[in-house]
Amino acid sequence: KDDVVSKKDEVGIVNGLAWTSVGGEMLEVEVAVVPGTGKIEVTGNLGTVMQESAKAAVTFVRSRAQTLDIDPMFYKDNDLHIHFPEAAVPKDGPSAGVTITTALVSALTEAPVRHDVAMTGEVTLRGRVLPIGGLREKTMAAYRAGIKTIVIPKENEPDLQDIEPVVRETLRFVPAAHMDTVMETAIDFSKRPEKRKKSARGPVARRTDAPAAPVVQ
Amino acid sequence: KDDVVSKKDEVGIVNGLAWTSVGGEMLEVEVAVVPGTGKIEVTGNLGTVMQESAKAAVTFVRSRAQTLDIDPMFYKDNDLHIHFPEAAVPKDGPSAGVTITTALVSALTEAPVRHDVAMTGEVTLRGRVLPIGGLREKTMAAYRAGIKTIVIPKENEPDLQDIEPVVRETLRFVPAAHMDTVMETAIDFSKRPEKRKKSARGPVARRTDAPAAPVVQ
Amino acid sequence: KDDVVSKKDEVGIVNGLAWTSVGGEMLEVEVAVVPGTGKIEVTGNLGTVMQESAKAAVTFVRSRAQTLDIDPMFYKDNDLHIHFPEAAVPKDGPSAGVTITTALVSALTEAPVRHDVAMTGEVTLRGRVLPIGGLREKTMAAYRAGIKTIVIPKENEPDLQDIEPVVRETLRFVPAAHMDTVMETAIDFSKRPEKRKKSARGPVARRTDAPAAPVVQ
Amino acid sequence: KDDVVSKKDEVGIVNGLAWTSVGGEMLEVEVAVVPGTGKIEVTGNLGTVMQESAKAAVTFVRSRAQTLDIDPMFYKDNDLHIHFPEAAVPKDGPSAGVTITTALVSALTEAPVRHDVAMTGEVTLRGRVLPIGGLREKTMAAYRAGIKTIVIPKENEPDLQDIEPVVRETLRFVPAAHMDTVMETAIDFSKRPEKRKKSARGPVARRTDAPAAPVVQ
Amino acid sequence: KDDVVSKKDEVGIVNGLAWTSVGGEMLEVEVAVVPGTGKIEVTGNLGTVMQESAKAAVTFVRSRAQTLDIDPMFYKDNDLHIHFPEAAVPKDGPSAGVTITTALVSALTEAPVRHDVAMTGEVTLRGRVLPIGGLREKTMAAYRAGIKTIVIPKENEPDLQDIEPVVRETLRFVPAAHMDTVMETAIDFSKRPEKRKKSARGPVARRTDAPAAPVVQ
Amino acid sequence: KDDVVSKKDEVGIVNGLAWTSVGGEMLEVEVAVVPGTGKIEVTGNLGTVMQESAKAAVTFVRSRAQTLDIDPMFYKDNDLHIHFPEAAVPKDGPSAGVTITTALVSALTEAPVRHDVAMTGEVTLRGRVLPIGGLREKTMAAYRAGIKTIVIPKENEPDLQDIEPVVRETLRFVPAAHMDTVMETAIDFSKRPEKRKKSARGPVARRTDAPAAPVVQ
Ligand SMILES: [Ca+2]
Ligand SMILES: [Ca+2]
Ligand SMILES: [Ca+2]
Ligand SMILES: [Ca+2]
Ligand SMILES: [Ca+2]
Ligand SMILES: [Ca+2]
Ligand SMILES: [Ca+2]
Ligand SMILES: [Ca+2]
Ligand SMILES: [Ca+2]
Ligand SMILES: [Ca+2]
Ligand SMILES: [Ca+2]
Ligand SMILES: [Ca+2]
Repeated sequence: KDDVVSKKDEVGIVNGLAWTSVGGEMLEVEVAVVPGTGKIEVTGNLGTVMQESAKAAVTFVRSRAQTLDIDPMFYKDNDLHIHFPEAAVPKDGPSAGVTITTALVSALTEAPVRHDVAMTGEVTLRGRVLPIGGLREKTMAAYRAGIKTIVIPKENEPDLQDIEPVVRETLRFVPAAHMDTVMETAIDFSKRPEKRKKSARGPVARRTDAPAAPVVQ
Repeated sequence: KDDVVSKKDEVGIVNGLAWTSVGGEMLEVEVAVVPGTGKIEVTGNLGTVMQESAKAAVTFVRSRAQTLDIDPMFYKDNDLHIHFPEAAVPKDGPSAGVTITTALVSALTEAPVRHDVAMTGEVTLRGRVLPIGGLREKTMAAYRAGIKTIVIPKENEPDLQDIEPVVRETLRFVPAAHMDTVMETAIDFSKRPEKRKKSARGPVARRTDAPAAPVVQ
Repeated sequence: KDDVVSKKDEVGIVNGLAWTSVGGEMLEVEVAVVPGTGKIEVTGNLGTVMQESAKAAVTFVRSRAQTLDIDPMFYKDNDLHIHFPEAAVPKDGPSAGVTITTALVSALTEAPVRHDVAMTGEVTLRGRVLPIGGLREKTMAAYRAGIKTIVIPKENEPDLQDIEPVVRETLRFVPAAHMDTVMETAIDFSKRPEKRKKSARGPVARRTDAPAAPVVQ
Repeated sequence: KDDVVSKKDEVGIVNGLAWTSVGGEMLEVEVAVVPGTGKIEVTGNLGTVMQESAKAAVTFVRSRAQTLDIDPMFYKDNDLHIHFPEAAVPKDGPSAGVTITTALVSALTEAPVRHDVAMTGEVTLRGRVLPIGGLREKTMAAYRAGIKTIVIPKENEPDLQDIEPVVRETLRFVPAAHMDTVMETAIDFSKRPEKRKKSARGPVARRTDAPAAPVVQ
Repeated sequence: KDDVVSKKDEVGIVNGLAWTSVGGEMLEVEVAVVPGTGKIEVTGNLGTVMQESAKAAVTFVRSRAQTLDIDPMFYKDNDLHIHFPEAAVPKDGPSAGVTITTALVSALTEAPVRHDVAMTGEVTLRGRVLPIGGLREKTMAAYRAGIKTIVIPKENEPDLQDIEPVVRETLRFVPAAHMDTVMETAIDFSKRPEKRKKSARGPVARRTDAPAAPVVQ
Repeated sequence: KDDVVSKKDEVGIVNGLAWTSVGGEMLEVEVAVVPGTGKIEVTGNLGTVMQESAKAAVTFVRSRAQTLDIDPMFYKDNDLHIHFPEAAVPKDGPSAGVTITTALVSALTEAPVRHDVAMTGEVTLRGRVLPIGGLREKTMAAYRAGIKTIVIPKENEPDLQDIEPVVRETLRFVPAAHMDTVMETAIDFSKRPEKRKKSARGPVARRTDAPAAPVVQ
């Protein structure tokens, strides 16, 4: 049964992309922030590498709390829950790092995520985006699900020459070397609720990649 | 020995449905809320996927505490215990998500659960209901036990054409895309004790599926 | 070496019944309540299902603290230790649920347990008693040890026709659908120390099975 | 290399007896009580059954704190360490229960343990002493090490007819059904330091077995 | 795909060197310090020996807090996260000890790490640098990535005679017997932000190896 | 590569001796004491028996805090880290007990350890030194590394007749039945810093073995 992309932008839900032995797969992540005491729950039948991705994502967001205008004490007064639905399927690997990070930032800022954007990429503590495998299969799954824009690691740009022509012509590809590019592309910060904005500064400022643009090959 | 449905509505007990290699099975879940310090116990010989289902259910309920008119601090002043009886039988999989969630909401609101309703479906942090397997066997087990209404995931509607004619003609099927539909169908909020109602607003309001109705095939 | 039943009623010690590959076996449980900080210790070479039985028993007792006239804060100011002697023998399964629950209630109320009563049955969070296996072997072990009364799950009544005639004629059988019947049969609440009684209400009141009576087959 | 018994009475050190595939073995236990925060450490290459024995011993001592005139808060202001030397040898089984309990009581009362007494027996939360195996080999090891008195479980008395005549004639055997007999035999309460005695009452009073006496066979 | 060295000095990021069955590999470590409660997270698909290296590194840095002019309470008011990117690759062994230590010191002092320095070596609690294996492969990987200076354990100096001539002629080798030499070589303390300097004393003073100098062979 | 003994006395570093399948080996232990909250870290690729040795060593030192004139609250206001370098090599067994204990006492008193002393022996909670295996190989390794004095368990004295004549003639052997002898031999208490001395009493007083002296065979 093919995945179909959600029809509206939502807070804390991001379209990821997975590679399996039978092809690519859309893989959503959900993040919920509830009043709590600083616990972090990570669920969805994940292997240890993917659980560690979630930890790296949380540390990156905490280290950027000020820049993103998020309450720097959020990690103490809330519980975070990162969940991958379709829990019957075991999942592993580091390539959901950008997806988890984007969902965390959306949930903490309450700015919605664009529903027609999908993404893949490992993320480091500094927000660098590292290359991943299975790009051909992942982009095909995104295309079939109705995705319009895919964020990929900048180091994977050369691999775009191997993907299906119809996919390459239909989708917009945004190569990203850093999370800032990913967040700008996927999160609609203009819809962030007023009450959460604590400073005049824009939410993502320092260290930005070149302006996101369609890939020309 | 066939399962027989309970004869009265009870608080915190919900009829789930399981698939086993020898057919369908009724699988109840019990939730108890006792004064405590915020611990969550999950028992009944469960595999890790089912334990994660319980965690996702708890986060969904916590994120909906205000809408459901539940004390938002319940998670701090109480211990929750989610238990699956018939503990000799190992259990696993995500399809008891809606059952656990319904039992949690009933236990926390003290509104009873309709004894002639059974249900199956994976649940996400946002309360979305995802499709499950084994619908034919599960509905047969519900029919034999005397169930009147079954809540199924909306994405499983096409599978209803494969179930036994006698089951399809006797039971009412409620397809649900979101927990709101599940709770409306299974919980008798009119019997919620007065003292627990803190606002005039109804307990389940935002984001509702289309009105629950018998499936016509 | 055959088990011989204790000659006097004691607080917190209950006669359970186990099934092994070489026949039935008396299996006592001891519960100690000592001033502490809310820790629960469960020992005696138990498998995970039996450890979960103990957790379900504790939650049931906590949910009934008021009805049983037990200090509702007992779980915070005491440590509970549930121990199965004969620790060299591995033990597992849910059928000691009623035994553990009875020992907990006796230890917390300081009312002694009748020394000539034995019991078997799974217990749920609501105190429902569920059916078990090996009734023939278990009743034979109780008979050999000098037991007078056996509490069995109500759903196991039909299995009484398969037990040894001499056992059936000598012992009194009390079928129980709920823990209230088990506690009434096994615990001598009349010997509960005065200082612990905080209200005039009897200790076990709500939701009772039909009066306990010898099984007639 | 044969074990040789210590030449003086010490606080918190007790002679246990173990059975191994190559015969009996003396097995000492040491207990240290140091100012702390309530932690319990159990070391010496022990299997889980033996670790549980230690937990049961601690609970028994805590439940008898008042009778033994031990500060009832000792479990909060001290750390207990139970250690079995000769840590290269894996050890398991419940028969060191009486040894651990005796060492705990000696360490907490500062009353020394008689150096020429050895013991074996499982202990329950109520201090009952349960039968053990390997009595023939264990008594032989005690005899070779120079032990004068052996405490054995009362239910093992019939097994004394199988032990070596020279052992039976040389050693004094004290059958015990309860820890009170074990403690009276092994601990020299007359040497308990004055400052720790808080009441006039003797340290071991309630529930005593018949006076300890040499076994006559 | 060959590793390429970063083009600028960064805080908390250090170039390590790993040996794999297919040759040497650049292996970066990232350390993030975020306001917190003293938790230490170590991620990146690490085996237990490498996780223990991280613990030893943290203790060394804590023991040198005063000398390094780091707030001695940093371990209480912050959470430390040590992460190895390229998380799909399992990593183990003690030779990243100097790399982790350097990254910790850089992150805590906010002094940047020279981007053209790489290093390998086990570290002890006292900061001693112990010898490692695979020097030939590691230095080749550093050479290919554009590294200018490599810090190696002093005890590995004799192994330099086995490395590729082109590598030996191009790179500067700094043999280190203690972490002080490693830190002096890799961290640019002159760029440490003023506000963090609490005393006039230089950051690394006691116990220094001989001045770092190119290896002459 | 042969081990070479350190050239100066250091605080918290002690020369241990290990037996491996290819002969004896010098095995240092390092102990660091840093301001903290009472945590104990034990690292260096250790098996469970060796980890338990470390726990026994800590309890012995805590029980002797007063005699050794160590702040009895040290275990609350500091974190202890016990580390065995050369972390790539798995290590196990109880014979490093005396080494760990000596390193702990040196680190807590800040009195240095004599660099030309090595030791081997199991230690108990009371500080008794128990016999070990592999004495021939261990003494050979110490001899080759330049050690002058070896502390061995008193019960191993008879095994000295099996060691290499050159080793027996060159090294001084100190047989110890108790930790007091070990500490007197290895720790230079005369160099203990003044500020840490809180009483006039010498640091090691009670229960001493006969004066340490060269073994005559
Ligand atoms: Ca799918
Ligand atoms: Ca999917
Ligand atoms: Ca059934
Ligand atoms: Ca069932
Ligand atoms: Ca038996
Ligand atoms: Ca028995
Ligand atoms: Ca021995
Ligand atoms: Ca022995
Ligand atoms: Ca690479
Ligand atoms: Ca690399
Ligand atoms: Ca070596
Ligand atoms: Ca060595």
